[in-house]
Amino acid sequence: MKELKLALLGFGNAGQAFGRLLLDKEEEIKKTYETEIKVTVIATASKGNIYDPEGINLRTAIEDINEDGRFSEKHRLTQLSTMELSKEADYDVLVEMTPLNIFTGQPAADHIKTALGRRKHVITANKGPVAWFFRELSHMAHDADVCFFYETTVMDGTPVFNLAEKTLKMAKVTEVSGILNSTTNYILEELAKGEDYDDIMERGRKMGFIEADPAMDIEGYDAAAKITALLNVLMDAGITPDQVRRKGIEDITAEDIGKAKERGKVIKLLCRGFRNEKGEVEATVEPVEISENDILAGINSTTSIVSITTDLMKKISVIEHEPEIEQTAYGVFSDLLRVLDRVAYNK
Amino acid sequence: MKELKLALLGFGNAGQAFGRLLLDKEEEIKKTYETEIKVTVIATASKGNIYDPEGINLRTAIEDINEDGRFSEKHRLTQLSTMELSKEADYDVLVEMTPLNIFTGQPAADHIKTALGRRKHVITANKGPVAWFFRELSHMAHDADVCFFYETTVMDGTPVFNLAEKTLKMAKVTEVSGILNSTTNYILEELAKGEDYDDIMERGRKMGFIEADPAMDIEGYDAAAKITALLNVLMDAGITPDQVRRKGIEDITAEDIGKAKERGKVIKLLCRGFRNEKGEVEATVEPVEISENDILAGINSTTSIVSITTDLMKKISVIEHEPEIEQTAYGVFSDLLRVLDRVAYNK
Repeated sequence: MKELKLALLGFGNAGQAFGRLLLDKEEEIKKTYETEIKVTVIATASKGNIYDPEGINLRTAIEDINEDGRFSEKHRLTQLSTMELSKEADYDVLVEMTPLNIFTGQPAADHIKTALGRRKHVITANKGPVAWFFRELSHMAHDADVCFFYETTVMDGTPVFNLAEKTLKMAKVTEVSGILNSTTNYILEELAKGEDYDDIMERGRKMGFIEADPAMDIEGYDAAAKITALLNVLMDAGITPDQVRRKGIEDITAEDIGKAKERGKVIKLLCRGFRNEKGEVEATVEPVEISENDILAGINSTTSIVSITTDLMKKISVIEHEPEIEQTAYGVFSDLLRVLDRVAYNK
Repeated sequence: MKELKLALLGFGNAGQAFGRLLLDKEEEIKKTYETEIKVTVIATASKGNIYDPEGINLRTAIEDINEDGRFSEKHRLTQLSTMELSKEADYDVLVEMTPLNIFTGQPAADHIKTALGRRKHVITANKGPVAWFFRELSHMAHDADVCFFYETTVMDGTPVFNLAEKTLKMAKVTEVSGILNSTTNYILEELAKGEDYDDIMERGRKMGFIEADPAMDIEGYDAAAKITALLNVLMDAGITPDQVRRKGIEDITAEDIGKAKERGKVIKLLCRGFRNEKGEVEATVEPVEISENDILAGINSTTSIVSITTDLMKKISVIEHEPEIEQTAYGVFSDLLRVLDRVAYNK
């Protein structure tokens, strides 16, 4: 039985859901890959850090968080910081799930660079590093001959990057578009129903899919980071989120939506990118009027869509329907299975 | 430089488009896989058969068909039948693209069995064999340790089977649904616009997406074969198309559609399959009223959709937007690249 040691950076809802999934699939992984997964590091901002080269008891770690909100003395607590653990701890795969700074991609990108510099595999659920540092990180991973996977960064575990890489071989991506931000999608939908803006925000916050400060969503920064990540990976765009022509929904009024409706249209915050005549990739995020009969008009609430146009397969789309936190966990898990494919089978 | 020899059974529009794609990508394949693709057999129902173990000139073969509708003396014509060629010719990969008998899956299934019996790889664009004989064929391929690929059989080259196999690892499929027949989809859409049935049929035939005898589509047989293929592969259903509860659109009137519209609904021919309490897979094809706001309501004309529900990723959908014959060719081509992955890299 081989071993694969994971360092989990970040242990919020998604990290804990990933932990539960690891526990559920422990036996299946052993059977399929003849490999035992051990978590040696869990680093958090506010719950404490634990490090055990022999393997953390993941079940009690999750219980600790649920019961007390932080790790107990049952575990080997450490004063080492997240960055120090990235640098020094014993692990084979760094799993980056720390909170995102959408304007810098940090400190996630530095954690990842540290791991890649140590020739460790990296899985990130954090879109910042893919939006801000994709070329550098992918070159580092290539030179170190290790995996760098990021399926979760757009649409959770819904295959987008893997779809293009694994199933659209030799097809060249010419255009990417999508509805990728559920907060704005929900707000626009509710405004169209005639709901009041403040009521929408209050309800959305209660339901957990509008953040306390929703500016990152409403002003289109989140969507810009996602389309940048998509274009960097699928079209080798080499762009950063600040190069996206970005317009949020902050100026969209119920009246705009009503007028659009009279013309048989709905308003959606659409992300798009394509290669222009100079060979550069241009990207936009902006509210767009969509025909009520269009597929995009049916993308409501937390559902999202990515459309990928290639020279050989024209346009295909992938939809994620109303995901929950388990779907984020599955994205990280599916990347882990790809690492296992490589480690166990050299695939 | 290695060699991989293909036997093409069937050389209609899709076969010729596949031939053109092979020619376009000849150099890229050589470079990527260090393998030269040679076509040694082209077998057709009405254009003659050619067999050249040294490799057919694919370019002149396509020219022959375009100019004269049959192969000329430039090629090594043979009197061997399609079945005899399957049995005796020198090839590594059988590419099955003969016309479909939807009620039997034959003679395509027998061609495939013959090739698998000879331990040759098989790619089929023909849904019949996957709908009628999937378990037998996949067991034969497994025992012979060869590839048996069929991505094209549902939604052309849009990844459906590959998506599940390559990108949804360890996720268990619990339900599959979709709009999979463009003829009926087009007819229902045009009826909803108030068009006359006979006019629709005439126009659809001229545009090339309604067949001379559209009964297979209208009565739901084509859709039943497709959902069967999906369920056999994705859920190990072990069913045949005659086990699908099937209702076509032959009884749907403009009045039905109008009444649905008054309720904010459209009618679509929906395919569905799920595992029942006994653990058996149940499948249906039937006209269903869909809310106008639903994503499915936006699936119009030749666009189609498959939704796959799994335990770990809930529901995701894949859409193919208005495909043409090149997208069918790409499906076969992408399967060929998977064969090359296996042959060249043992992946």
